[in-house]
Amino acid sequence: MNKNVVLALSGGMDSSTLVGYYVNKGYKVFPVIFTYGSKHNKYENECAFKIAEELNCVPPKFVELDFISKLFKSNLLQDGGEIPEGHYEDKSMSKTVVPGRNSIFISILAGYAESIGANTIAVGVHSGDHHIYPDCRADFINAMAKAIELSSEGKVILEAPFLSYYKLDILKIGYSLETPVPYEFTRTCYKDQVLSCGKCGSCQERLEAFKLLGKEDPIEYEQ
Amino acid sequence: MNKNVVLALSGGMDSSTLVGYYVNKGYKVFPVIFTYGSKHNKYENECAFKIAEELNCVPPKFVELDFISKLFKSNLLQDGGEIPEGHYEDKSMSKTVVPGRNSIFISILAGYAESIGANTIAVGVHSGDHHIYPDCRADFINAMAKAIELSSEGKVILEAPFLSYYKLDILKIGYSLETPVPYEFTRTCYKDQVLSCGKCGSCQERLEAFKLLGKEDPIEYEQ
Repeated sequence: MNKNVVLALSGGMDSSTLVGYYVNKGYKVFPVIFTYGSKHNKYENECAFKIAEELNCVPPKFVELDFISKLFKSNLLQDGGEIPEGHYEDKSMSKTVVPGRNSIFISILAGYAESIGANTIAVGVHSGDHHIYPDCRADFINAMAKAIELSSEGKVILEAPFLSYYKLDILKIGYSLETPVPYEFTRTCYKDQVLSCGKCGSCQERLEAFKLLGKEDPIEYEQ
Repeated sequence: MNKNVVLALSGGMDSSTLVGYYVNKGYKVFPVIFTYGSKHNKYENECAFKIAEELNCVPPKFVELDFISKLFKSNLLQDGGEIPEGHYEDKSMSKTVVPGRNSIFISILAGYAESIGANTIAVGVHSGDHHIYPDCRADFINAMAKAIELSSEGKVILEAPFLSYYKLDILKIGYSLETPVPYEFTRTCYKDQVLSCGKCGSCQERLEAFKLLGKEDPIEYEQ
Protein backbone atom coordinates (compact mmCIF):
# COMPACT_ATOMS: atom_id res chain seq x y z
CA MET A 1 0.00 0.00 0.00
CA ASN A 2 1.38 3.39 -0.99
CA LYS A 3 0.90 6.62 0.94
CA ASN A 4 -1.19 8.42 -1.66
CA VAL A 5 -4.65 9.48 -0.59
CA VAL A 6 -7.46 10.92 -2.70
CA LEU A 7 -9.94 12.86 -0.60
CA ALA A 8 -12.95 15.14 -0.90
CA LEU A 9 -12.04 18.67 0.16
CA SER A 10 -14.87 21.16 0.59
CA GLY A 11 -12.97 23.88 2.41
CA GLY A 12 -14.96 23.30 5.58
CA MET A 13 -13.56 22.41 9.00
CA ASP A 14 -13.86 18.65 8.70
CA SER A 15 -12.35 18.05 5.29
CA SER A 16 -9.60 20.62 5.91
CA THR A 17 -8.70 18.78 9.10
CA LEU A 18 -8.75 15.56 7.09
CA VAL A 19 -6.11 17.02 4.77
CA GLY A 20 -3.99 18.05 7.78
CA TYR A 21 -4.42 14.59 9.28
CA TYR A 22 -3.02 12.81 6.21
CA VAL A 23 -0.31 15.39 5.49
CA ASN A 24 0.96 14.93 9.02
CA LYS A 25 0.98 11.16 8.56
CA GLY A 26 3.32 11.62 5.59
CA TYR A 27 0.75 11.06 2.86
CA LYS A 28 0.77 12.72 -0.52
CA VAL A 29 -2.71 14.24 -0.69
CA PHE A 30 -4.75 14.45 -3.94
CA PRO A 31 -7.75 16.65 -3.14
CA VAL A 32 -10.93 16.58 -5.19
CA ILE A 33 -13.22 19.61 -4.98
CA PHE A 34 -16.79 18.77 -5.90
CA THR A 35 -19.05 21.51 -7.21
CA TYR A 36 -22.71 20.72 -7.48
CA GLY A 37 -24.72 23.90 -7.46
CA SER A 38 -25.00 24.21 -3.70
CA LYS A 39 -25.54 27.71 -2.39
CA HIS A 40 -22.30 27.93 -0.47
CA ASN A 41 -20.16 26.33 -3.16
CA LYS A 42 -18.35 29.35 -4.60
CA TYR A 43 -17.06 30.62 -1.24
CA GLU A 44 -16.18 27.16 -0.02
CA ASN A 45 -14.26 26.35 -3.20
CA GLU A 46 -11.92 29.30 -2.74
CA CYS A 47 -11.25 28.09 0.79
CA ALA A 48 -10.64 24.55 -0.41
CA PHE A 49 -8.11 25.77 -2.94
CA LYS A 50 -6.32 27.84 -0.32
CA ILE A 51 -6.21 24.98 2.18
CA ALA A 52 -4.74 22.64 -0.44
CA GLU A 53 -2.06 25.21 -1.17
CA GLU A 54 -1.25 25.93 2.48
CA LEU A 55 -0.97 22.24 3.30
CA ASN A 56 1.16 21.37 0.25
CA CYS A 57 -1.28 19.06 -1.47
CA VAL A 58 -1.09 18.09 -5.11
CA PRO A 59 -3.09 20.78 -6.99
CA PRO A 60 -6.77 19.93 -6.50
CA LYS A 61 -8.99 18.53 -9.23
CA PHE A 62 -12.38 20.16 -9.68
CA VAL A 63 -15.23 17.79 -10.42
CA GLU A 64 -18.40 19.47 -11.59
CA LEU A 65 -21.56 17.54 -10.90
CA ASP A 66 -24.10 19.59 -12.83
CA PHE A 67 -26.66 16.85 -12.81
CA ILE A 68 -27.12 17.13 -9.05
CA SER A 69 -28.72 20.56 -9.27
CA LYS A 70 -30.69 19.55 -12.36
CA LEU A 71 -32.10 16.26 -11.10
CA PHE A 72 -31.90 16.28 -7.32
CA LYS A 73 -34.01 18.07 -4.74
CA SER A 74 -32.53 19.74 -1.65
CA ASN A 75 -32.73 23.12 0.06
CA LEU A 76 -28.94 23.14 -0.12
CA LEU A 77 -29.14 23.57 -3.89
CA GLN A 78 -29.52 26.79 -5.85
CA ASP A 79 -33.12 26.20 -6.87
CA GLY A 80 -34.16 24.68 -3.54
CA GLY A 81 -35.87 26.42 -0.61
CA GLU A 82 -34.34 28.59 2.11
CA ILE A 83 -31.44 27.34 4.22
CA PRO A 84 -32.93 26.87 7.68
CA GLU A 85 -31.48 28.73 10.67
CA GLY A 86 -30.99 27.36 14.16
CA HIS A 87 -29.31 24.25 15.46
CA TYR A 88 -28.96 20.96 13.59
CA GLU A 89 -32.15 19.05 14.16
CA ASP A 90 -34.29 16.72 12.10
CA LYS A 91 -37.16 18.92 11.02
CA SER A 92 -35.28 21.85 9.62
CA MET A 93 -31.79 20.65 8.70
CA SER A 94 -33.01 17.47 7.04
CA LYS A 95 -34.06 19.75 4.18
CA THR A 96 -30.36 20.22 3.45
CA VAL A 97 -29.80 16.53 2.70
CA VAL A 98 -28.67 16.03 -0.89
CA PRO A 99 -29.81 12.45 -1.55
CA GLY A 100 -26.99 10.06 -2.30
CA ARG A 101 -24.31 12.72 -2.14
CA ASN A 102 -21.73 10.72 -0.23
CA SER A 103 -22.09 7.58 -2.31
CA ILE A 104 -21.56 9.67 -5.44
CA PHE A 105 -18.53 11.44 -3.96
CA ILE A 106 -16.98 8.23 -2.66
CA SER A 107 -17.52 6.37 -5.96
CA ILE A 108 -15.81 9.13 -7.92
CA LEU A 109 -12.91 9.35 -5.47
CA ALA A 110 -12.46 5.59 -5.83
CA GLY A 111 -12.43 5.64 -9.63
CA TYR A 112 -9.96 8.51 -9.68
CA ALA A 113 -7.75 6.83 -7.06
CA GLU A 114 -7.66 3.61 -9.06
CA SER A 115 -6.79 5.58 -12.19
CA ILE A 116 -3.77 7.25 -10.57
CA GLY A 117 -2.76 4.24 -8.49
CA ALA A 118 -3.56 5.74 -5.07
CA ASN A 119 -4.47 3.06 -2.53
CA THR A 120 -6.50 5.16 -0.13
CA ILE A 121 -9.54 7.40 -0.40
CA ALA A 122 -10.90 9.35 2.54
CA VAL A 123 -13.93 11.36 3.61
CA GLY A 124 -14.38 13.60 6.64
CA VAL A 125 -17.77 12.33 7.86
CA HIS A 126 -18.21 12.45 11.64
CA SER A 127 -20.68 11.60 14.40
CA GLY A 128 -22.27 15.06 14.47
CA ASP A 129 -23.76 14.38 11.06
CA HIS A 130 -25.11 10.91 11.77
CA HIS A 131 -28.50 11.90 13.02
CA ILE A 132 -29.57 13.94 9.98
CA TYR A 133 -27.54 12.51 7.13
CA PRO A 134 -27.93 8.75 6.64
CA ASP A 135 -24.96 8.73 4.27
CA CYS A 136 -22.65 9.82 7.10
CA ARG A 137 -23.44 6.86 9.38
CA ALA A 138 -21.04 4.04 10.14
CA ASP A 139 -23.21 1.31 8.61
CA PHE A 140 -23.41 3.19 5.31
CA ILE A 141 -19.67 3.95 5.30
CA ASN A 142 -18.91 0.28 6.03
CA ALA A 143 -21.16 -0.96 3.20
CA MET A 144 -19.62 1.56 0.85
CA ALA A 145 -16.09 0.60 1.92
CA LYS A 146 -16.92 -3.00 1.09
CA ALA A 147 -18.32 -2.00 -2.32
CA ILE A 148 -15.22 0.05 -3.15
CA GLU A 149 -12.87 -2.71 -2.07
CA LEU A 150 -14.72 -5.21 -4.27
CA SER A 151 -15.05 -2.86 -7.21
CA SER A 152 -11.32 -2.11 -7.19
CA GLU A 153 -10.32 -5.69 -6.34
CA GLY A 154 -8.65 -4.49 -3.15
CA LYS A 155 -6.59 -1.76 -4.79
CA VAL A 156 -8.52 1.07 -3.13
CA ILE A 157 -9.53 1.30 0.53
CA LEU A 158 -12.00 3.82 1.96
CA GLU A 159 -11.09 5.46 5.25
CA ALA A 160 -13.22 7.74 7.40
CA PRO A 161 -10.91 8.48 10.34
CA PHE A 162 -13.33 10.92 12.02
CA LEU A 163 -16.36 8.64 11.86
CA SER A 164 -16.68 8.30 15.64
CA TYR A 165 -15.64 11.88 16.43
CA TYR A 166 -17.61 15.05 17.03
CA LYS A 167 -16.71 18.53 15.76
CA LEU A 168 -14.83 19.29 18.98
CA ASP A 169 -12.62 16.20 18.59
CA ILE A 170 -11.90 17.14 15.00
CA LEU A 171 -10.89 20.64 16.02
CA LYS A 172 -8.64 19.21 18.73
CA ILE A 173 -6.91 17.02 16.15
CA GLY A 174 -6.49 19.95 13.78
CA TYR A 175 -4.77 22.07 16.42
CA SER A 176 -2.64 19.21 17.78
CA LEU A 177 -0.93 18.38 14.48
CA GLU A 178 2.72 19.23 13.89
CA THR A 179 1.54 21.36 10.97
CA PRO A 180 -1.76 22.65 12.40
CA VAL A 181 -4.75 23.24 10.15
CA PRO A 182 -5.05 26.90 9.12
CA TYR A 183 -8.69 27.30 10.14
CA GLU A 184 -8.61 30.95 9.11
CA PHE A 185 -8.93 29.71 5.52
CA THR A 186 -11.86 27.39 6.14
CA ARG A 187 -15.57 28.08 5.68
CA THR A 188 -18.54 26.22 7.10
CA CYS A 189 -21.59 28.42 6.37
CA TYR A 190 -24.42 27.01 4.22
CA LYS A 191 -25.59 30.44 3.02
CA ASP A 192 -24.96 32.17 -0.27
CA GLN A 193 -23.16 35.26 1.08
CA VAL A 194 -19.60 36.52 1.48
CA LEU A 195 -19.46 36.56 5.28
CA SER A 196 -20.49 33.45 7.18
CA CYS A 197 -23.91 33.99 8.75
CA GLY A 198 -23.24 32.52 12.18
CA LYS A 199 -26.87 31.42 12.35
CA CYS A 200 -27.35 28.34 10.14
CA GLY A 201 -26.97 24.92 11.72
CA SER A 202 -23.57 24.50 10.17
CA CYS A 203 -22.20 27.80 11.52
CA GLN A 204 -23.69 27.17 14.97
CA GLU A 205 -22.11 23.76 15.23
CA ARG A 206 -18.73 25.22 14.28
CA LEU A 207 -18.96 28.11 16.72
CA GLU A 208 -19.96 25.71 19.49
CA ALA A 209 -16.90 23.55 18.87
CA PHE A 210 -14.52 26.52 19.04
CA LYS A 211 -16.24 27.72 22.21
CA LEU A 212 -15.94 24.30 23.86
CA LEU A 213 -12.26 24.19 22.98
CA GLY A 214 -11.77 27.66 24.45
CA LYS A 215 -10.40 29.06 21.20
CA GLU A 216 -11.61 31.92 19.12
CA ASP A 217 -12.88 31.04 15.65
CA PRO A 218 -10.39 32.86 13.36
CA ILE A 219 -12.95 33.64 10.62
CA GLU A 220 -15.17 36.69 10.41
CA TYR A 221 -18.93 36.42 10.89
CA GLU A 222 -21.77 38.66 9.82
CA GLN A 223 -22.79 39.04 13.46
CA MET B 1 -43.32 0.43 -2.63
CA ASN B 2 -44.43 2.13 -5.85
CA LYS B 3 -43.83 0.80 -9.36
CA ASN B 4 -41.47 3.53 -10.51
CA VAL B 5 -38.00 2.43 -11.54
CA VAL B 6 -34.98 4.55 -12.38
CA LEU B 7 -32.49 2.68 -14.53
CA ALA B 8 -29.32 3.18 -16.54
CA LEU B 9 -30.04 2.86 -20.25
CA SER B 10 -27.08 2.68 -22.62
CA GLY B 11 -28.88 1.56 -25.74
CA GLY B 12 -27.13 -1.80 -25.64
CA MET B 13 -28.79 -5.20 -25.51
CA ASP B 14 -28.74 -5.65 -21.75
CA SER B 15 -30.09 -2.31 -20.59
CA SER B 16 -32.67 -2.24 -23.39
CA THR B 17 -33.91 -5.64 -22.25
CA LEU B 18 -33.95 -4.26 -18.71
CA VAL B 19 -36.35 -1.53 -19.86
CA GLY B 20 -38.55 -4.13 -21.55
CA TYR B 21 -38.47 -6.29 -18.42
CA TYR B 22 -39.80 -3.50 -16.18
CA VAL B 23 -42.25 -2.11 -18.73
CA ASN B 24 -43.77 -5.58 -19.03
CA LYS B 25 -44.03 -5.82 -15.24
CA GLY B 26 -46.15 -2.66 -15.28
CA TYR B 27 -43.47 -0.27 -14.07
CA LYS B 28 -43.17 3.36 -15.06
CA VAL B 29 -39.59 3.55 -16.30
CA PHE B 30 -37.37 6.62 -15.78
CA PRO B 31 -34.26 6.02 -17.92
CA VAL B 32 -30.98 7.79 -17.27
CA ILE B 33 -28.50 7.97 -20.14
CA PHE B 34 -24.93 8.48 -18.93
CA THR B 35 -22.43 10.11 -21.24
CA TYR B 36 -18.81 9.95 -20.20
CA GLY B 37 -16.60 10.41 -23.20
CA SER B 38 -16.50 6.76 -24.20
CA LYS B 39 -15.81 6.06 -27.84
CA HIS B 40 -19.12 4.44 -28.62
CA ASN B 41 -21.21 6.95 -26.66
CA LYS B 42 -22.72 9.04 -29.47
CA TYR B 43 -24.11 6.07 -31.43
CA GLU B 44 -25.30 4.30 -28.30
CA ASN B 45 -27.08 7.41 -27.02
CA GLU B 46 -29.23 7.66 -30.12
CA CYS B 47 -30.21 4.04 -29.64
CA ALA B 48 -30.99 4.61 -25.98
CA PHE B 49 -33.27 7.48 -26.85
CA LYS B 50 -35.06 5.44 -29.49
CA ILE B 51 -35.53 2.46 -27.15
CA ALA B 52 -36.99 4.71 -24.45
CA GLU B 53 -39.44 6.10 -27.01
CA GLU B 54 -40.40 2.72 -28.44
CA LEU B 55 -41.00 1.24 -25.00
CA ASN B 56 -43.00 4.22 -23.70
CA CYS B 57 -40.63 5.30 -20.97
CA VAL B 58 -40.66 8.71 -19.33
CA PRO B 59 -38.37 10.92 -21.51
CA PRO B 60 -34.79 9.99 -20.54
CA LYS B 61 -32.52 12.25 -18.52
CA PHE B 62 -29.02 12.74 -19.84
CA VAL B 63 -26.29 12.85 -17.21
CA GLU B 64 -22.95 14.06 -18.45
CA LEU B 65 -19.98 12.80 -16.50
CA ASP B 66 -17.20 14.90 -17.99
CA PHE B 67 -14.83 14.18 -15.17
CA ILE B 68 -14.58 10.52 -16.13
CA SER B 69 -12.73 11.26 -19.36
CA LYS B 70 -10.66 13.96 -17.65
CA LEU B 71 -9.57 12.01 -14.59
CA PHE B 72 -9.99 8.32 -15.34
CA LYS B 73 -7.91 5.97 -17.46
CA SER B 74 -9.45 3.36 -19.76
CA ASN B 75 -9.11 2.30 -23.38
CA LEU B 76 -12.87 2.76 -23.59
CA LEU B 77 -12.42 6.53 -23.29
CA GLN B 78 -11.70 9.03 -26.06
CA ASP B 79 -8.09 9.65 -25.08
CA GLY B 80 -7.36 6.02 -24.17
CA GLY B 81 -5.70 3.36 -26.33
CA GLU B 82 -7.25 1.18 -29.04
CA ILE B 83 -10.34 -0.90 -28.38
CA PRO B 84 -9.09 -4.50 -28.49
CA GLU B 85 -10.59 -6.97 -30.96
CA GLY B 86 -11.41 -10.61 -30.32
CA HIS B 87 -13.38 -12.32 -27.61
CA TYR B 88 -13.87 -11.06 -24.05
CA GLU B 89 -10.84 -12.19 -22.10
CA ASP B 90 -8.74 -10.75 -19.29
CA LYS B 91 -5.67 -9.54 -21.08
CA SER B 92 -7.24 -7.48 -23.80
CA MET B 93 -10.75 -6.56 -22.66
CA SER B 94 -9.64 -5.59 -19.14
CA LYS B 95 -8.28 -2.45 -20.78
CA THR B 96 -11.87 -1.39 -21.33
CA VAL B 97 -12.65 -1.29 -17.60
CA VAL B 98 -13.60 2.22 -16.49
CA PRO B 99 -12.68 2.11 -12.81
CA GLY B 100 -15.62 2.60 -10.47
CA ARG B 101 -18.11 3.13 -13.27
CA ASN B 102 -20.95 1.09 -11.84
CA SER B 103 -20.67 2.51 -8.33
CA ILE B 104 -20.87 6.00 -9.82
CA PHE B 105 -23.84 5.10 -12.02
CA ILE B 106 -25.70 3.34 -9.19
CA SER B 107 -25.09 6.19 -6.73
CA ILE B 108 -26.48 8.74 -9.17
CA LEU B 109 -29.51 6.59 -10.01
CA ALA B 110 -30.19 6.27 -6.28
CA GLY B 111 -29.99 10.02 -5.60
CA TYR B 112 -32.24 10.76 -8.56
CA ALA B 113 -34.72 8.06 -7.54
CA GLU B 114 -34.91 9.42 -4.01
CA SER B 115 -35.47 12.92 -5.40
CA ILE B 116 -38.45 11.87 -7.53
CA GLY B 117 -39.79 9.33 -5.03
CA ALA B 118 -39.09 6.21 -7.10
CA ASN B 119 -38.53 3.16 -4.90
CA THR B 120 -36.49 1.04 -7.30
CA ILE B 121 -33.30 1.50 -9.26
CA ALA B 122 -31.97 -1.10 -11.64
CA VAL B 123 -28.88 -2.01 -13.63
CA GLY B 124 -28.45 -4.59 -16.38
CA VAL B 125 -25.25 -6.26 -15.17
CA HIS B 126 -25.01 -9.98 -15.98
CA SER B 127 -22.79 -13.02 -15.53
CA GLY B 128 -20.97 -12.56 -18.83
CA ASP B 129 -19.33 -9.44 -17.42
CA HIS B 130 -18.26 -10.88 -14.09
CA HIS B 131 -14.89 -12.16 -15.10
CA ILE B 132 -13.49 -8.89 -16.45
CA TYR B 133 -15.46 -6.22 -14.63
CA PRO B 134 -15.31 -6.46 -10.82
CA ASP B 135 -18.14 -3.93 -10.53
CA CYS B 136 -20.52 -6.34 -12.28
CA ARG B 137 -20.08 -9.18 -9.77
CA ALA B 138 -22.72 -10.27 -7.28
CA ASP B 139 -20.66 -9.43 -4.19
CA PHE B 140 -20.13 -5.87 -5.39
CA ILE B 141 -23.80 -5.45 -6.36
CA ASN B 142 -24.85 -6.78 -2.95
CA ALA B 143 -22.54 -4.41 -1.06
CA MET B 144 -23.75 -1.51 -3.18
CA ALA B 145 -27.40 -2.50 -2.65
CA LYS B 146 -26.78 -2.41 1.09
CA ALA B 147 -25.10 1.02 0.84
CA ILE B 148 -28.00 2.44 -1.19
CA GLU B 149 -30.60 1.02 1.16
CA LEU B 150 -28.81 2.59 4.14
CA SER B 151 -28.13 5.89 2.41
CA SER B 152 -31.80 6.28 1.46
CA GLU B 153 -33.11 4.86 4.75
CA GLY B 154 -34.86 2.06 2.87
CA LYS B 155 -36.62 4.34 0.38
CA VAL B 156 -34.59 3.08 -2.60
CA ILE B 157 -33.78 -0.53 -3.45
CA LEU B 158 -31.22 -1.64 -6.05
CA GLU B 159 -32.22 -4.50 -8.33
CA ALA B 160 -30.07 -6.33 -10.85
CA PRO B 161 -32.47 -8.92 -12.26
CA PHE B 162 -30.01 -10.28 -14.85
CA LEU B 163 -27.14 -10.77 -12.39
CA SER B 164 -27.05 -14.54 -12.75
CA TYR B 165 -27.90 -14.60 -16.47
CA TYR B 166 -25.76 -14.73 -19.57
CA LYS B 167 -26.34 -12.80 -22.80
CA LEU B 168 -28.34 -15.67 -24.25
CA ASP B 169 -30.73 -15.70 -21.27
CA ILE B 170 -31.19 -11.94 -21.57
CA LEU B 171 -32.01 -12.22 -25.24
CA LYS B 172 -34.50 -15.00 -24.48
CA ILE B 173 -36.22 -12.74 -21.95
CA GLY B 174 -36.29 -9.85 -24.40
CA TYR B 175 -38.01 -11.92 -27.08
CA SER B 176 -40.42 -13.63 -24.67
CA LEU B 177 -41.98 -10.42 -23.33
CA GLU B 178 -45.52 -9.43 -24.26
CA THR B 179 -44.02 -6.26 -25.74
CA PRO B 180 -40.73 -7.66 -27.07
CA VAL B 181 -37.56 -5.56 -27.04
CA PRO B 182 -36.98 -3.89 -30.44
CA TYR B 183 -33.37 -5.08 -30.79
CA GLU B 184 -33.13 -3.40 -34.19
CA PHE B 185 -32.68 -0.14 -32.29
CA THR B 186 -29.95 -1.38 -29.94
CA ARG B 187 -26.19 -1.06 -30.31
CA THR B 188 -23.46 -3.01 -28.59
CA CYS B 189 -20.22 -2.12 -30.41
CA TYR B 190 -17.38 -0.46 -28.48
CA LYS B 191 -15.90 1.24 -31.54
CA ASP B 192 -16.20 4.84 -32.66
CA GLN B 193 -17.84 4.21 -36.04
CA VAL B 194 -21.33 4.32 -37.59
CA LEU B 195 -21.70 0.62 -38.34
CA SER B 196 -21.02 -1.91 -35.58
CA CYS B 197 -17.66 -3.59 -36.19
CA GLY B 198 -18.64 -7.18 -35.45
CA LYS B 199 -15.11 -7.81 -34.18
CA CYS B 200 -14.72 -6.24 -30.73
CA GLY B 201 -15.44 -8.40 -27.69
CA SER B 202 -18.74 -6.69 -27.18
CA CYS B 203 -19.96 -7.34 -30.75
CA GLN B 204 -18.73 -10.93 -30.70
CA GLU B 205 -20.56 -11.70 -27.49
CA ARG B 206 -23.76 -10.25 -28.94
CA LEU B 207 -23.49 -12.13 -32.21
CA GLU B 208 -22.82 -15.35 -30.33
CA ALA B 209 -25.99 -14.92 -28.27
CA PHE B 210 -28.15 -14.37 -31.36
CA LYS B 211 -26.56 -17.39 -33.03
CA LEU B 212 -27.18 -19.61 -30.01
CA LEU B 213 -30.82 -18.51 -29.94
CA GLY B 214 -31.13 -19.27 -33.65
CA LYS B 215 -32.21 -15.73 -34.51
CA GLU B 216 -30.68 -13.23 -36.84
CA ASP B 217 -29.28 -10.09 -35.25
CA PRO B 218 -31.47 -7.35 -36.76
CA ILE B 219 -28.72 -4.69 -36.85
CA GLU B 220 -26.29 -4.09 -39.68
CA TYR B 221 -22.59 -4.88 -39.28
CA GLU B 222 -19.54 -3.62 -41.12
CA GLN B 223 -18.76 -7.20 -42.09
